[in-house]
Amino acid sequence: MSAADAVVIGVDYGTLSGRALVVRVSDGAELGSAVHAYRHAVMDATLSAHRGQPLPPEWALQVPGDYVEVLRSAVPEALREAGVAPEQVIGIATDFTACTMVPTTTEGTPLSELPDYADRPHAYVKLWKHHAAQAQADRINELAHSRGESWINRYGGFISSEWEFAKGLQILEEDPEIYAAMDHWVEAADWIVWQLTGEYVRNACTAGYKGIYQDGSYPDAEFLSALNPEFSGFVTEKLDHRIGQLGERAGGLSAAAAAWTGLPEGIAVAVGNVDAHVTAPAADAVAPGQMVAIMGTSTCHVMNGDRLAEVPGMCGAVYGGITDGLWGYEAGQSGVGDIFAWYVENQVPGGVSAEAEGRGLSVHELLTEKAAAQPVGAHGLVALDWHSGNRSVLVDHELSGLVLGQTLATKPEDGYRALLESTAFGTRTIIEAFNDSGVPVTELVVAGGLLRNAFLMQLYADITGLPISTIVSAQGPALGSAIHAAVAAGAYPDASAAGAVMGGRRKNAYTPQPEAAAAYDELYAEYRALHDYFGRGGNDVMRRLKAIRRRAHHQEVTA
Amino acid sequence: MSAADAVVIGVDYGTLSGRALVVRVSDGAELGSAVHAYRHAVMDATLSAHRGQPLPPEWALQVPGDYVEVLRSAVPEALREAGVAPEQVIGIATDFTACTMVPTTTEGTPLSELPDYADRPHAYVKLWKHHAAQAQADRINELAHSRGESWINRYGGFISSEWEFAKGLQILEEDPEIYAAMDHWVEAADWIVWQLTGEYVRNACTAGYKGIYQDGSYPDAEFLSALNPEFSGFVTEKLDHRIGQLGERAGGLSAAAAAWTGLPEGIAVAVGNVDAHVTAPAADAVAPGQMVAIMGTSTCHVMNGDRLAEVPGMCGAVYGGITDGLWGYEAGQSGVGDIFAWYVENQVPGGVSAEAEGRGLSVHELLTEKAAAQPVGAHGLVALDWHSGNRSVLVDHELSGLVLGQTLATKPEDGYRALLESTAFGTRTIIEAFNDSGVPVTELVVAGGLLRNAFLMQLYADITGLPISTIVSAQGPALGSAIHAAVAAGAYPDASAAGAVMGGRRKNAYTPQPEAAAAYDELYAEYRALHDYFGRGGNDVMRRLKAIRRRAHHQEVTA
Repeated sequence: MSAADAVVIGVDYGTLSGRALVVRVSDGAELGSAVHAYRHAVMDATLSAHRGQPLPPEWALQVPGDYVEVLRSAVPEALREAGVAPEQVIGIATDFTACTMVPTTTEGTPLSELPDYADRPHAYVKLWKHHAAQAQADRINELAHSRGESWINRYGGFISSEWEFAKGLQILEEDPEIYAAMDHWVEAADWIVWQLTGEYVRNACTAGYKGIYQDGSYPDAEFLSALNPEFSGFVTEKLDHRIGQLGERAGGLSAAAAAWTGLPEGIAVAVGNVDAHVTAPAADAVAPGQMVAIMGTSTCHVMNGDRLAEVPGMCGAVYGGITDGLWGYEAGQSGVGDIFAWYVENQVPGGVSAEAEGRGLSVHELLTEKAAAQPVGAHGLVALDWHSGNRSVLVDHELSGLVLGQTLATKPEDGYRALLESTAFGTRTIIEAFNDSGVPVTELVVAGGLLRNAFLMQLYADITGLPISTIVSAQGPALGSAIHAAVAAGAYPDASAAGAVMGGRRKNAYTPQPEAAAAYDELYAEYRALHDYFGRGGNDVMRRLKAIRRRAHHQEVTA
Repeated sequence: MSAADAVVIGVDYGTLSGRALVVRVSDGAELGSAVHAYRHAVMDATLSAHRGQPLPPEWALQVPGDYVEVLRSAVPEALREAGVAPEQVIGIATDFTACTMVPTTTEGTPLSELPDYADRPHAYVKLWKHHAAQAQADRINELAHSRGESWINRYGGFISSEWEFAKGLQILEEDPEIYAAMDHWVEAADWIVWQLTGEYVRNACTAGYKGIYQDGSYPDAEFLSALNPEFSGFVTEKLDHRIGQLGERAGGLSAAAAAWTGLPEGIAVAVGNVDAHVTAPAADAVAPGQMVAIMGTSTCHVMNGDRLAEVPGMCGAVYGGITDGLWGYEAGQSGVGDIFAWYVENQVPGGVSAEAEGRGLSVHELLTEKAAAQPVGAHGLVALDWHSGNRSVLVDHELSGLVLGQTLATKPEDGYRALLESTAFGTRTIIEAFNDSGVPVTELVVAGGLLRNAFLMQLYADITGLPISTIVSAQGPALGSAIHAAVAAGAYPDASAAGAVMGGRRKNAYTPQPEAAAAYDELYAEYRALHDYFGRGGNDVMRRLKAIRRRAHHQEVTA
């Protein structure tokens, strides 16, 4: 095999499916891909993997076996589609949603796979959007501030309920037997690499962003003990383990994984990584000031900076968290595409669906077309994009959605457009937090499925006032993983260099239109006023309504 | 003909149709009825009566000829259905939406029927829900308070944009030629009586509630001139005319009207009246403390009191405004059933409609069934019922709707239930204003189409904490008009006496459930906090959004 024939495989684990992509190392050409949907999808209403018992609100679980199925089915299928021989493959890398956590035994067996625990919700994977540990997150934040913990400001002042500590503490406090049985509390990003190599390596990215690993250490036992005396050993007993840097070789492909995938045993397997973070090199956008927004179900923002700054409400700043030698910043919006999907599924009348079908459009396309015909502000609405809580800059998953301004003349497309706009206002809020903290954003680079909506992209340019570039690849995260596989296999010195050859973006694909931008400034001011009123304590009605809702559901379940 | 055979006809003019009802005078038996829908319905997007030119937001016009068609078609049809001979009919009376205004010549010809003016929106009937005169209403209120006008507190401190002065001033300022051509500015309630009798008589009810006629006089020329110098003659030139008391005979049925209706010439025609106000005797609920809520498209509340009090945000207090010898109080919610209808039309997915159809239910019935299965507070939502503005207690049609608390788990029935609840919270807000002003409400008597929804009725009992009685007649206003026809014909001494025989209610059909009432108290507190924040100046975002919306539409029209 000549070097020109060498390929790598990137596997991107999303919320509902995994995708394998075969990429030529020499130029990044995407030769074949395949998708495998998780059989159990997201378990957020019932534990469908086991007798379907109901789950409380805000829960979101997955089944780890579904991830292995992606290796068994999507990888061989992508190879077949690419028409390349397995011997051409020099490396494989994976990226995952985060923070998605698997409780395992010492051997890495998920507790949900042990018959004794199959009926226990806490034995399952807690998906990133499991938001039932807000009470624990609140206590972590309060305690960290009261004790003046230095690490808290690396996370914009807030540890999320989505992350390793809050979710781990929830297990301890709600199902101590499962907590006791759990030998490792493992990022799914690392669990899948463990399955591929037989080696457990914690990746530097999630350890830093989700595991509060900063400057070589975790929160100390005294802090943990103050949270809950039983939690004092959490780091030493459940979490701490060898850290691997991004793009490093975690190990060689094991015989078992070679059998699943049909790939040669022993090829390079990269250290685990996160979908958003691998996308930055895939878009060739790793320079300071280039904020990469991966816009799909949710939006994740990643950006390198050449110095450490404390940005209020960011998800985290981790040295080497995106690429070596720079501070990697992360922020996020916990609901974006899923809010649009929720609206289409729950709030759009049959007549619109029928019209879309008749014209061969998706409902999203038709609503976008109708919305695009309106002048800015004509719908008279402003919305808050908190249907799935707020990740940045408020870091509060007890927040919820709001639509204001409805009249009897409000049409389905009006509400849809207001939601599109609300997510762009959310992005602008994040960008302003970075700008105000001395980490200026100069270019917004969009990846993810939503970039196909040209109206939405123009709206983001108009609302943020930034030029918008779009990633060339339609499989950004999988390509980003493939780039890391190439680095792990030694084909490039680092991800930046690999991304410059294998990745790419359409620079300034959209630029702000001055008149629309001015009109949106006015609506953004309204958004910000509501954002601060409902998000910063002016009126905690959203938190109270969630508490009332939980109580009502609880009474129903126990009645 | 024996007295036992005597019948009267009540004609109820609603927002979209007119209904004629034939009623036996001796016992109130409803013998026959017929409905005629207005051919032009409500013109709120385009002037469909003339070339369909677009109308600005917040406009709502009608065509007066449509009202006459009701006399021509529904009255004879109701007689046929009743199987009574025309000679049995001893009187006819009408009630109307209010404040619905017709600009006419001295002869009562609507300006829209003059060929020169057929293309002029201001020449048409301004329906009650024409809300485009808010700027004029604001000025009227500001000036009244700054001058300390005594009449302003008879209206809870606010003159509505729906009423005679604001709508009249809008014509002057937007189409002065139409204003100049207008010899009379006539309530539709009185215009239809003018058509029936050939006599123009202003009824005491609308003159008081909508025309600022208090203690025998109107706002003076000095006040009018301060509003706009050209407006100084509004009362003397356009408005002032003979006042007739409710239940009085306005005149005899004219030969022309006898020909339209097939009724005997010369029979009693009662002074005009308003749909809500005539319903109180139809429900046999005219005692102080009995608040009658006519719940349909909107809700109107009427209640007698034995003394004058100033209730903040009420629509008005008029001596003899409901029945003789008592102070008639009125309040209202400008959107109720139409908010539910808007939701069903614009925010309910096809799957729900299909399920309803499959089960032989209306979408409203299915959503109600799904909503009723939830514990109080389980949807996690709170809404403001201002899609059509707020009549009481805020009197501000620049306000708009709000839904707060949405998550990705929010279902169509959740939003529906939150809107049902929001209207009940609105009613409670009104009741509390009366209670706090020394005019206590002791019984809520519901009339109107929404009383058919038993879940909604129970919800109103739980939220208001009051026993709810329901009117027996399914045609409350038409029966109320018939009662007034009987009084005008001399069959009863007054409407109270006639109502006690011809009307009736199911006393305490629903009573509050203590557990639900306590749960709703918590949600009501959230409603009130949002109500006061958005409605009393905490954040005027709704007003600003409406201004932005108007500007955006205007730019579109002129672009």
